[in-house]
Amino acid sequence: MIDPVVLKGFRDSLPAQEIPKRRLIRKLEDIFALYGFSPIDTPALEYTSVLLGKGGGETDKQIFHFTDNGGREVALRFDLTVPFARFVAAHSGEISRPFKRYHINKVWRGENPQKGRYREFYQCDFDIVGVDNEYADSEILSTMAYCMREIFQGDDGAFRFHLAHRGLFNDFLEALGVRERSVEVLRAVDKLRKIGRDEVARILSEETGSPDKAERILSFITVVEGESFLDTLGRLEDLIGKPSAAASRLRATYSLLEEEGIAHLFSLDPSITRGLDYYTGIVYETFLTAMPSIGSVCSGGRYNNLASLYTKEELPGVGSSIGLDRLLAALEELGSPILASSSGADLLIVSEDKAKSYSEDVAWAGALRKEGLRCDLYPFNVKKMKAVYDYSGKNSIPFILVYNWKGERLLKDTRTQESLAVKDLDEVTSAIKERLH
Amino acid sequence: MIDPVVLKGFRDSLPAQEIPKRRLIRKLEDIFALYGFSPIDTPALEYTSVLLGKGGGETDKQIFHFTDNGGREVALRFDLTVPFARFVAAHSGEISRPFKRYHINKVWRGENPQKGRYREFYQCDFDIVGVDNEYADSEILSTMAYCMREIFQGDDGAFRFHLAHRGLFNDFLEALGVRERSVEVLRAVDKLRKIGRDEVARILSEETGSPDKAERILSFITVVEGESFLDTLGRLEDLIGKPSAAASRLRATYSLLEEEGIAHLFSLDPSITRGLDYYTGIVYETFLTAMPSIGSVCSGGRYNNLASLYTKEELPGVGSSIGLDRLLAALEELGSPILASSSGADLLIVSEDKAKSYSEDVAWAGALRKEGLRCDLYPFNVKKMKAVYDYSGKNSIPFILVYNWKGERLLKDTRTQESLAVKDLDEVTSAIKERLH
Repeated sequence: MIDPVVLKGFRDSLPAQEIPKRRLIRKLEDIFALYGFSPIDTPALEYTSVLLGKGGGETDKQIFHFTDNGGREVALRFDLTVPFARFVAAHSGEISRPFKRYHINKVWRGENPQKGRYREFYQCDFDIVGVDNEYADSEILSTMAYCMREIFQGDDGAFRFHLAHRGLFNDFLEALGVRERSVEVLRAVDKLRKIGRDEVARILSEETGSPDKAERILSFITVVEGESFLDTLGRLEDLIGKPSAAASRLRATYSLLEEEGIAHLFSLDPSITRGLDYYTGIVYETFLTAMPSIGSVCSGGRYNNLASLYTKEELPGVGSSIGLDRLLAALEELGSPILASSSGADLLIVSEDKAKSYSEDVAWAGALRKEGLRCDLYPFNVKKMKAVYDYSGKNSIPFILVYNWKGERLLKDTRTQESLAVKDLDEVTSAIKERLH
Repeated sequence: MIDPVVLKGFRDSLPAQEIPKRRLIRKLEDIFALYGFSPIDTPALEYTSVLLGKGGGETDKQIFHFTDNGGREVALRFDLTVPFARFVAAHSGEISRPFKRYHINKVWRGENPQKGRYREFYQCDFDIVGVDNEYADSEILSTMAYCMREIFQGDDGAFRFHLAHRGLFNDFLEALGVRERSVEVLRAVDKLRKIGRDEVARILSEETGSPDKAERILSFITVVEGESFLDTLGRLEDLIGKPSAAASRLRATYSLLEEEGIAHLFSLDPSITRGLDYYTGIVYETFLTAMPSIGSVCSGGRYNNLASLYTKEELPGVGSSIGLDRLLAALEELGSPILASSSGADLLIVSEDKAKSYSEDVAWAGALRKEGLRCDLYPFNVKKMKAVYDYSGKNSIPFILVYNWKGERLLKDTRTQESLAVKDLDEVTSAIKERLH
C-alpha cells in the first residue's frame, strides 16, 4: 500500500475550496473581458536560461529546475511576468499594440513553505503593454476597482487602493542629493509595515549617511490622516521643491479617476514603493479594511520595458496582479457571501424504489437542469434516509426531492428541515428558486 | 538578447486559441455542475513513487521527473486518473460515497511529440466512484450526451457514442476457451482501426494458436451495419452461448438511456475494447461523423477498483475523459460556431481627441459593460484610422465607436464596413446587440 501523501508545500483542492476558487476566477475573467483584456497561456515548463535571464542568484534556489530526458535545462515558471515578457517578444508580429492580456494560472516556487504560503499557487495578472500614458494607467486602476467592487458587492468601504509614483519618490531623493542610493532606500521603505519606523530610520541613516535625511525621507512617506489625494500631491511636490513630471502624470491619472467617479477609492500613499527595481511609474497596493494584516491583495505598477531581455522593441506597460489565494483566504475569513456556497448541486433526487421512478426522475432532472438548477440523482434505492443526508451534507446540497414507497414526492429543505409535498415540476422549480435566492 | 523560444513539444496559447478553449472549458464546467459533479484539483508535482505506484517501466520514460532541492524524487503528473485515485484515498473521510468529481487541468508527458501531440496538454475527466450499477453508468453516458449536444448545438448526427462491455467480450473469450489470453487479444483488437483487419487476424491467430478462433473473435467484434443496439446485444449473447451478466447490465443501462430519450445516440460496437487492463464493465468512445480519422474525442469506462494502490477500501467507478485539445482542433477544422469568435472585445471606443471626450467615453463604456458588452478603450488620440483598424483587426473586435473632431459619434461595423451616426447610448447598445446576435 502506498501512502497517498502530497509533497510538503503542496495541497489538494477539495470541492469546498475549488468551487469558490473557480467561481472567483470566472468572475474575474468576466470583468477582464468587459475591459477588453484577452486571455493567454504559456507552458508551465520552460528553458531555465529563458526564465532566469541574466540573473539567477536569489531566484535560482527558489525555482524547481532539472535536466530533462533530452538533456535540456528546464524549470517550472515561478511567476507569470517573465513568461509574458518572453511571450510578447516571441509573438511580436501576431499581437496588437497596445496588447491587453490577462493570465490566470499556477506558478511554482521551491522556497520553504511558511504558514499560508505554498510552493504551488495561482497568479492572476493583467497588463496593458505598448502604451505609456495616463489613459492606460487609469484603465488598469479602473479594472482593479471593478474587480474589488464586484467581489465586495459594491461595499466601497471594504477595500482601499494605495497609490504612489516611483518617479515622485526619485525626484525627492534627487532633491535630497541621495538619488544614487534609491534602490537601497526603496527597499528599506518597502519594509516599513513589517519592521516598523524606528528600524527603517536606522537603515535609512546608514544608507544616506545622515539621520536628518533619514528623517526627511520618513516624513515624505508618512501619510497625513485626513489629507486629500490632491493636497498630499501638492505637499509632496512642495517637498521636492520644483515641478515634477511624475506629479503631473499622477494628477492627470487622478483626474481621469475623478471623471470616472471612482477617485474616492484611491489614497495617495507615498510609503508604497514596491520592492522591485522593475517599476518606473505609478505603483499600488490594495488593502482590505477588515483585514489590514494580510497585506495587499492586488498590487502592481508601471514599468518602462517589459521584454528587454528578449527583444529590442521597447514595450512600456502597466499591470496588476491579484493575490488569488490570499484574497480567497481573506474572503473565507470574512464570511463573504460570494464564497458562501460550495455546494455541488442545488437538488438531490432520491427514490425509495429507483426502478419504479427512474424515468420520471430523469425527466424531472432534465427539465430542472434546463431551468439552470443543478440536479444530482442519488444512484441507489433508499432504505434509510441517513445515508442520503450524509451524502447531501458532504456535498452541501440544500434540497432533496424524495419519491417514497407510497408514490408521494416530498421536497425537503435540508437547512430548515422543512418538508413540502409536491405534485409537479412547476411546484418543485418555484419552491427551490424561491428559497435559493 | 535571449531567444524567446519554448521547449520542443510545448506551445504558447494566444488569445485566438485561448478564448475558444476557455469558452469550451466553461461550457463543460457548467454541464458538469448541472449533473452535480464538483471540481477538484491536485498538485502538478507529486512524489514519483506515488504517481508511478508499483509499475514504472513504460510510463517511467514518458514522465518528467527529477530530484528536487530537498532530495525528493518528484514528477509532473502524466494524467488525472492516478492523482484522483491518490486523492480519494487521502480524503476518504471528507468525501461522500458516491463521489462525483470533475477535474480539468494540465498534464505533462515526456514522449516524443508527434503531429498534433504535445508534451503539455489539458485533460478533462469526470467520474462517479463508490457505486457499481446501471444508474451510475447511464448518468455518465447522459452527461457525455449533454456535453456533445451542447457542443454541436443539438445536431445529434454530428457525433456517435460507441459502447461495448468488457465483460461481454471476456464471456465470449471464455466460451471460446482463450480467456487466459484476454489481455493480448484486447490489445490486438484495440488496434483494429489502426492496423486493419488482416494484421489483427494474424496477431489473433498467433495469440490463440488457431486461425479459426481468430476468425470467430473478428466476427464477434464486427459491426453489422443497420443492426439495432438490442439486436446486436442478442446476437452477441447467442455467440457467447449462455446468459451473461454483462449483457444484462448492458441491457439495463440501455433501457435507462431509452427512458431518458437519448438511446438513439449510442451504438453497440464490440470492437471498442480500450487498450487498458483497467476497465471491467462498459467501455465507450465517441466519434465525430465529419472527422472519423481524428479518433475518439471522449472515452472511458467502468473500472472496479480506483484506488487499490493507496487504500483497502474498494472503490468501483465509472468515468469519462474528454480530449479537449483534440476536440478543439476538430471544432476549429469544422468551423464550429461555438468557437467562431475569438474576439477580445465587442466594441472599441476611439477618440480623435481623447482629452476632450474621455469622461464621456468612460461613462459610455461603463454603461455598455453593465449591458454585458465588452468594451475596450483605445488609449491614444487618433490621427490616422489605420492604426485603429490594425488594432481592432488583431483583436477581432467587430465594432468601433469613433468620436471625431467634429464632435460626431460614428459606429462602424468592421465586418460590413457599415457606418452609422449615433446620438446616444441606447442607439449604440441596440445597434450592436442587433448585429451581434
